[in-house]
Amino acid sequence: MVEIRDLDYTADGSTMIGRLAVPDGNDTRPAVLIAHEGGGLDDYQKGRAARFAELGYVAFALDYHGGGTPLPDETAIERRCRDLWFEPERIRALARAGLDLLLAEPRADPSRVAAIGYCFGGALVLELARSGADVKAVVGFHPRLATRRAQDAANIRAKVLVCVGTEDPLVSPRERLAFEEEMRAGGVDWRMNLYGGTEHSFTNPTSDAADRPGVSYHRVSDDRSWRAMLDLFDEVFA
Amino acid sequence: MVEIRDLDYTADGSTMIGRLAVPDGNDTRPAVLIAHEGGGLDDYQKGRAARFAELGYVAFALDYHGGGTPLPDETAIERRCRDLWFEPERIRALARAGLDLLLAEPRADPSRVAAIGYCFGGALVLELARSGADVKAVVGFHPRLATRRAQDAANIRAKVLVCVGTEDPLVSPRERLAFEEEMRAGGVDWRMNLYGGTEHSFTNPTSDAADRPGVSYHRVSDDRSWRAMLDLFDEVFA
Repeated sequence: MVEIRDLDYTADGSTMIGRLAVPDGNDTRPAVLIAHEGGGLDDYQKGRAARFAELGYVAFALDYHGGGTPLPDETAIERRCRDLWFEPERIRALARAGLDLLLAEPRADPSRVAAIGYCFGGALVLELARSGADVKAVVGFHPRLATRRAQDAANIRAKVLVCVGTEDPLVSPRERLAFEEEMRAGGVDWRMNLYGGTEHSFTNPTSDAADRPGVSYHRVSDDRSWRAMLDLFDEVFA
Repeated sequence: MVEIRDLDYTADGSTMIGRLAVPDGNDTRPAVLIAHEGGGLDDYQKGRAARFAELGYVAFALDYHGGGTPLPDETAIERRCRDLWFEPERIRALARAGLDLLLAEPRADPSRVAAIGYCFGGALVLELARSGADVKAVVGFHPRLATRRAQDAANIRAKVLVCVGTEDPLVSPRERLAFEEEMRAGGVDWRMNLYGGTEHSFTNPTSDAADRPGVSYHRVSDDRSWRAMLDLFDEVFA
């Protein structure tokens, strides 16, 4: 049986409500920090924490907007993400606050931690990596790749995997090449899985409901990127 | 016990000698066609056939230069690959001849076939795919991506995975983007795994001996790309 708990905490001046999921047993387990999409912490991402716990990981789906719920509309999402975008230190603090909650769970093994994120949450876990955090792996799914602190790639200790759709209007070929250059300059152990015919938010079955151009669920790429992530976890948590 | 046989056959006017490896048992098994690097069929690639058979696949390491041995030197390799490059129909015929040998093995399941290739052998299996061959998956490792028959991508029935190092001097970012455009136009189920800090021939432990700039073995990327290939096989042979 998986144990589920919603945890309140304060970060960036707001009350956050994240979702912790802990697998059955008493041993310490590898731990996964999950950063939701720009829209906010929804039921789908909360369910992901439980899915990880079923696989034997302690998982914490952090909240970086507040209240543990999605933002009300696109305007609010764009404003919030844009504001954060210009302040990488705020992004990192939001990530760090979530990581601290995860590490406070006694079942989480602090020497075996990964952070994954979706969309803006992908940018968030990449910023966490750039801050030099002691996480073994960082995975971004259709992540914002650009950063205002490219020089901090030299701090990255995690193995980095980014999973990007070729038809993602938010991650242009130019942005991919800039990321490649950043990772090269930083000497990072990194890779990019590029999925053909795949748009933004391809991991989220609720994407199609939004009916936005360039945004859609892609089951095959979702499965493949999930598998690639688990392969990386096998590698770093072996 | 794995059964190993060297098979003579004629293709492109030459006598070829490929290496067949068959797993223990009497059932039909998924089958893998292996296309060596531009240098020729060496002991390392022959050993790969046995490695597949140990995993339960019928495997045939084809020979596309002749004699079942490597070419003598870089000049011969460059001349041979350049000559073939301008004649995609010859490349396809060489690939097809190897595939026919593989399919002639009664233990090979003709409905579950993959083709993998390295360096120029990657170009060869991609041409096989462009010819419309009934293979379920094609994997290119540090493959030559360019083709003189880009319009034939529309014929591709295989799921395509290419594994490329960011520091491969033979596969430029421009060539990657052209391949992306080709796959998009052809409506192919494809993806590219891009490995940071990784040069040409990263799958071959003997690469370092050549002491050529931009060419070196990369154990981690070798392991990761092998894992990605097996994940794809699990997907298409399930």
